[in-house]
Amino acid sequence: MKIYTIKDIAQKAGVSVTTVSRVLNHRPDVNRETREKVERVMAACHFVGNANARGLKQTEGDLVAIIVRGHQNPFLNALAESILQHTKDCRATFLTEFIDEKADEFQTALRLLHERRVNGFIFVGSRIDQRAHELSGLDLPMVFTTVSAQQAGLPSAASVAIDDRAMGRLAAQVLLERGHRKIAVFGASRTGSDSLSLRYLGVRDAFTAAGLSFDESRYVETRFSLRGAYDSARAFFAVKGDTTAVFAMSDTVAMGVCRALSDIGRRVPEDVSVIGFDGTEMGKYYTPRLSTIEQPIEELASQTVLVLTDMLEHGVPPRHVTVEATLRLRESVL
Amino acid sequence: MKIYTIKDIAQKAGVSVTTVSRVLNHRPDVNRETREKVERVMAACHFVGNANARGLKQTEGDLVAIIVRGHQNPFLNALAESILQHTKDCRATFLTEFIDEKADEFQTALRLLHERRVNGFIFVGSRIDQRAHELSGLDLPMVFTTVSAQQAGLPSAASVAIDDRAMGRLAAQVLLERGHRKIAVFGASRTGSDSLSLRYLGVRDAFTAAGLSFDESRYVETRFSLRGAYDSARAFFAVKGDTTAVFAMSDTVAMGVCRALSDIGRRVPEDVSVIGFDGTEMGKYYTPRLSTIEQPIEELASQTVLVLTDMLEHGVPPRHVTVEATLRLRESVL
Repeated sequence: MKIYTIKDIAQKAGVSVTTVSRVLNHRPDVNRETREKVERVMAACHFVGNANARGLKQTEGDLVAIIVRGHQNPFLNALAESILQHTKDCRATFLTEFIDEKADEFQTALRLLHERRVNGFIFVGSRIDQRAHELSGLDLPMVFTTVSAQQAGLPSAASVAIDDRAMGRLAAQVLLERGHRKIAVFGASRTGSDSLSLRYLGVRDAFTAAGLSFDESRYVETRFSLRGAYDSARAFFAVKGDTTAVFAMSDTVAMGVCRALSDIGRRVPEDVSVIGFDGTEMGKYYTPRLSTIEQPIEELASQTVLVLTDMLEHGVPPRHVTVEATLRLRESVL
Repeated sequence: MKIYTIKDIAQKAGVSVTTVSRVLNHRPDVNRETREKVERVMAACHFVGNANARGLKQTEGDLVAIIVRGHQNPFLNALAESILQHTKDCRATFLTEFIDEKADEFQTALRLLHERRVNGFIFVGSRIDQRAHELSGLDLPMVFTTVSAQQAGLPSAASVAIDDRAMGRLAAQVLLERGHRKIAVFGASRTGSDSLSLRYLGVRDAFTAAGLSFDESRYVETRFSLRGAYDSARAFFAVKGDTTAVFAMSDTVAMGVCRALSDIGRRVPEDVSVIGFDGTEMGKYYTPRLSTIEQPIEELASQTVLVLTDMLEHGVPPRHVTVEATLRLRESVL
């Protein structure tokens, strides 16, 4: 007897793997007709992926580690919390580790692997580097949230993220269209294929599309905390005081920059426009209200848990999910 | 042979139970002399509390649930995260549940007890009510952080908190001393013995000490989110527009109030002074910088883990720890 996979079922039912997974997980967000069609196909195929894969892959003691890199980052905290909300119906137990943005998440992962017998990982706000490749060789379910593993070329890990390059481009475009030319970008190291490096490439795309080129001397590597951004901005504006607009790669960084500008007597947005990234709740209530690229936390979280559950419980291969981000224009950009 | 407890050792060595616990847990924060004295006493008593209690109380599978009530509360999030940082050297596994401020943390606790076989709890931002009493009847290690269980009269649970009543009093006193009389207080239900009710009693203490009485019509029950506080403040100031000062029982609430004031054309602090509570990082970088009562997150967290570890691993009875909060006067109060 042929053993059908979740992919076979999806193909036969003419739906996506995600939809089959939703049916398997008894999610409410599948319409009745689709659900019944998928169930008919599963019945016809004697589909046992669910129970069987579970028998093979899952014991009562499944333990998944959520590793959040950037413990001072409200966006990543909110995302981690939303992921936890979505794990409530899961059979596995989830433990959460918050680490510093400069810490090594893969060392943390290896430690958890040995100490706690973790058999699945969710990386939140991670980078992909050599160690990620080593870890992925262990063949454990592994989902990278906010990093496109596909772009990083990691074969055995799944990913859920926005299109960071397109969104970086959009942020810069907003400022360019308003006539700004002396634009500073507050990000981090831009040599990798992580989300921040992709946003930087997007900025360059926007300048190129406008027939301009980005002035690299206005790129600032900052820590992603209020204090880090504040200090970086004070130092930067002491030298590049003619800058008229800032794209900050997180709302937290944007708010640190705003506070620094206010302390050196520059008004936002009258003197300097500022656009952030992430779409945090704080940004909506900040003075001035922050323009930003809003990441869909709820969808990032639900997709992350769905992808992980599929790998852990149903033996589905890793997949890569891109979700939509949204530009929010508010007071901080003129 | 008499079996000595950790309390006996503390008494014989002339140190606190906390110090003995620190020695047992190989913490660095005990000076060498004290450590050696405690170790001598333990050796003389053939103290086996550590290994024995562990044999009785702890298996490899110890699982502690951290339940955080108030998932939108940055202070509680930062506290939960700091607690997780401090659990890194613990033998137990920790899982974290974030629930809404209106949700029932004890229902969550009971569910975890059944589903995950949790054998210890840390409640962050909890209230003590009848259900807490039921839960405490189970005789599992249980620590309430930011709530004084002692004041709530819960017999078998431990607690780590600031003196909320004294700090509520101090916040109100700051405003009274600056001549404010029409003072609004943004809190929550004030009928219990939770931290917010205690802060309210402190406010009344301050008014009484000044020979005044608090105008109850200026007490506002609000949700502890930016949006909740913003909406409450808009509604409140439409009616009580002569209010000249606000004590908000969290920095998040204070920032929602500030934004609402700005939107109705009132300046902070020129027209209305605002003092918050918690001492969040955001408050330091907000415009205006927030005056606040700063809770010592690091100390709350380390004490919480220490108290829990003592109960779980060393069979120490629950104890109640009070830590010091600090008034921070910044731009938002005139």
